[in-house]
Amino acid sequence: MMTMQTTPEGRTAVEPETGASRPVALMNSFSVPEGRDEVFLELWKQTSEYFRRQPGFRSLRLHRAVTPGAAYRAPHTTDEFRALVTQEAWLEFPSSPVLYEVVLAVGDDALGEAIR
Amino acid sequence: MMTMQTTPEGRTAVEPETGASRPVALMNSFSVPEGRDEVFLELWKQTSEYFRRQPGFRSLRLHRAVTPGAAYRAPHTTDEFRALVTQEAWLEFPSSPVLYEVVLAVGDDALGEAIR
Repeated sequence: MMTMQTTPEGRTAVEPETGASRPVALMNSFSVPEGRDEVFLELWKQTSEYFRRQPGFRSLRLHRAVTPGAAYRAPHTTDEFRALVTQEAWLEFPSSPVLYEVVLAVGDDALGEAIR
Repeated sequence: MMTMQTTPEGRTAVEPETGASRPVALMNSFSVPEGRDEVFLELWKQTSEYFRRQPGFRSLRLHRAVTPGAAYRAPHTTDEFRALVTQEAWLEFPSSPVLYEVVLAVGDDALGEAIR
């Protein structure tokens, strides 16, 4: 995914590279007001085209949040799941789950089945 | 990625399936206090093993947030990038970018190069 900050980063010291760079994944979350999907997509495409031209670019996926369906909910209703996630040990690790579908994919990750 | 809610979902009506299910991606973000990575990982593995046994499971990746390095920062300092992201049109789409590295990957997405 691509970064789209409206304030470009300031200049910062360049840290020494330690050998070959490891791949990183940018996950960027956008708030899109109702009815503004097309306007958003147009802007997003401009910026993603810029990143696709950069050296080292691998892949990107655009996702859209969806409501969980029955097949997704089923494993969350079993006793086994309940026992796992109600362990007290989980309390110190708050989580924020969101379910998505793939809208658009480019590059290594663009598996055929994921982008119908 | 896997869901780890500490409160299991309540019972909800099962909606009719419309043909074959489309793949979905759950993105779950966990807050892990400093020094608690190993405890978190142990819990996370238990839950991810549960999900890996479910019908329809495809793949998962665990990511850890990292600080941007030089190779990542470079394309964010060009005039072209600045011109793209300072367009007024972006103002209605606030974003929250976070950079990650892959810690662990299983299944379709476990590309060799991504999991050193």
